[in-house]
Amino acid sequence: MTIDVTLPETAHAPTTEEIMAAHVGGKLSTGLTAPLRDDRDLSISYTPGVAQVSRAIHADPSLAARYTWTQRLVAVVSDGTAVLGLGDIGPRAALPVMEGKSALFKTFGGLDSIPLVLDTTDVDEIVETLVRLRPSFGAVNLEDVSAPRCFELERRLIEALDCPVMHDDQHGTAIVLLAALRGACAVAGRDLARLRIVISGAGAAGVACARILLAAGATDVVVLDSRGVLVPGRAGVTGEKAALAAVTNPRRVTGGTADALAGADVFVGLSCARLPEELLAVMAPGGFVFALSNPDPEVHPDVAARYAAIVATGRSDFPNQINNVLAFPGVFRGALDAGARRITEAMKLAAAEAIFSVVADDLAPHRIVPSPFDPRVAPAVAAAVAAAADITR
Amino acid sequence: MTIDVTLPETAHAPTTEEIMAAHVGGKLSTGLTAPLRDDRDLSISYTPGVAQVSRAIHADPSLAARYTWTQRLVAVVSDGTAVLGLGDIGPRAALPVMEGKSALFKTFGGLDSIPLVLDTTDVDEIVETLVRLRPSFGAVNLEDVSAPRCFELERRLIEALDCPVMHDDQHGTAIVLLAALRGACAVAGRDLARLRIVISGAGAAGVACARILLAAGATDVVVLDSRGVLVPGRAGVTGEKAALAAVTNPRRVTGGTADALAGADVFVGLSCARLPEELLAVMAPGGFVFALSNPDPEVHPDVAARYAAIVATGRSDFPNQINNVLAFPGVFRGALDAGARRITEAMKLAAAEAIFSVVADDLAPHRIVPSPFDPRVAPAVAAAVAAAADITR
Repeated sequence: MTIDVTLPETAHAPTTEEIMAAHVGGKLSTGLTAPLRDDRDLSISYTPGVAQVSRAIHADPSLAARYTWTQRLVAVVSDGTAVLGLGDIGPRAALPVMEGKSALFKTFGGLDSIPLVLDTTDVDEIVETLVRLRPSFGAVNLEDVSAPRCFELERRLIEALDCPVMHDDQHGTAIVLLAALRGACAVAGRDLARLRIVISGAGAAGVACARILLAAGATDVVVLDSRGVLVPGRAGVTGEKAALAAVTNPRRVTGGTADALAGADVFVGLSCARLPEELLAVMAPGGFVFALSNPDPEVHPDVAARYAAIVATGRSDFPNQINNVLAFPGVFRGALDAGARRITEAMKLAAAEAIFSVVADDLAPHRIVPSPFDPRVAPAVAAAVAAAADITR
Repeated sequence: MTIDVTLPETAHAPTTEEIMAAHVGGKLSTGLTAPLRDDRDLSISYTPGVAQVSRAIHADPSLAARYTWTQRLVAVVSDGTAVLGLGDIGPRAALPVMEGKSALFKTFGGLDSIPLVLDTTDVDEIVETLVRLRPSFGAVNLEDVSAPRCFELERRLIEALDCPVMHDDQHGTAIVLLAALRGACAVAGRDLARLRIVISGAGAAGVACARILLAAGATDVVVLDSRGVLVPGRAGVTGEKAALAAVTNPRRVTGGTADALAGADVFVGLSCARLPEELLAVMAPGGFVFALSNPDPEVHPDVAARYAAIVATGRSDFPNQINNVLAFPGVFRGALDAGARRITEAMKLAAAEAIFSVVADDLAPHRIVPSPFDPRVAPAVAAAVAAAADITR
């Protein structure tokens, strides 16, 4: 039996016509930091004046960070292989999403951002392309690249580029999940280290979520893919999944979702797989259900609330929206402000702690994370990330 | 004997401190075409709304032009091998120039623009990189790529990309030169087809200028490189120069600058080589001297005026400034407005004619081209280029 958890459209939901009209001509523009009004402006910004700036950078390449826009410029890079819930729709169809992402970087992080969509899915070619373009930007936000390629691609880019690189579908999600779990623990008086946590989904987000929870002190994390619990030696448990199986599932649970959820305290849904109500019933009482798939959560939050103390989704029309926008603008802003060459695990943990801290004095079961529009979040995250960067460099 | 034609700084010339300060943080920024104020805006511009736009483009890729910013987005691409008068200073040091170029696209053409500087000078690799990035932009302005690589690179990119590509150092210069020569002819009552024209410089600009003048009806064009007049069979006359020698120099002049200038009506300086006054004296009386090298013209305009009826330079502090900004914003705007796949010779000729037309009713020896800040120019060029595109597609 499956339960239809498709949520009703809200009263003022935008129509298709409204949505399409809002995207005509795209969502981004470029502008000047100072206007060009006359010959004198031109002689400063362009020839002959600009030659002095070029000469200075030629003599000392480190000055490029000071005298170009790259130090606040994030390239949002995608090959369009795992776009939203749409899958491999290619770079052209992915571009509206990447423009939206760039718009979020500006709105929430005060960072400039250009979408670069690539007409290749070959990891070698993507790395090579970004290495050639390296002087053009200050950081890379990888977006909507399919697993397991995304793991190798991110790793290779971090090695090849001397600037912050982060696959947001992995680490943005993981940072906000950790912040939410910290919030939920504080509300419910639970200890993260003692929770039995089940993560449904071993793709980009699932793997990164499992790893950040372990780094934050979780001890009992069980990860499921479409074939069941990850355990060493199981068929299909290779590569990133094998590495994850080796450090998770300490009780060596085997089987499917029901086996994993028996007595579990936390369900984290990241796989779009529907969660039947009878499986919620086998969880331990007073737990947390984070049904994060978009647009349709794994289980309707009203149903989940019958079994769990705290419920979160990825949607803005329910309480406790776990949204990457709480993390990535501040993470990149902090990394760029600090001149960091990498986004380290310590910086990610600091980002999660900062998100949690913003609402720590004002927590409630329906408010375990700040609103995406809370103006305190990005500055707090940026400051924490920059501080962590200074420590760990 | 050489004459020092270094021009004095003007009274209000910007200081180095002022120039460097104006470039701190770079000159560009990105922005949103509509603000993101609340959850509803987010649900339209980003998830879940954007999925409808992506789905539509996936079903019909031609919709990318309508629903992304690419249709007004010019990539300003350089490998930093021939930057201003500075030479091969590399992509990092070239970036301030490219940011300035992007700022000009916005200011004069109303086009968005991103600088992409490439850490490779290999033509194959540059083509490959831009082919992979093709879904990210709507047109390519090649900038400051050294000759003779620039000829092959432009040709290869035009073949490989289904969008407008133009090396501005070649064709922007050529378009404005032709406009200026049309203006000078109108003022002086001369016929372009009967002029003896000498072009000093067989690099990117020199080659393109010779070709556009021939296309516009010039019959007697002699081109000089650093070793003298281009003539078939001469040592060093290979590749692009050999092709040019085959269609220029109908009187088969041989020798150096003095041989070329004997009896010439027009001198076009594009080589930074100083032009001694005694060589001006061998030109035919009542001619034109366009000393276009920047920042130091081949000959001081006051000296040139003793021998020529009309004098032009590339500088804003003398009359008749021959500046690419008269051409490229309108050329790309027109090509993008028309949805043109290529920038054809007809479009370039139409652009030159449009620039000339703006001042045709108001010509004078000191006003053979419009001011770069004349607001009529870019719209006139764009309209003419778009019309020519529609005809020749």
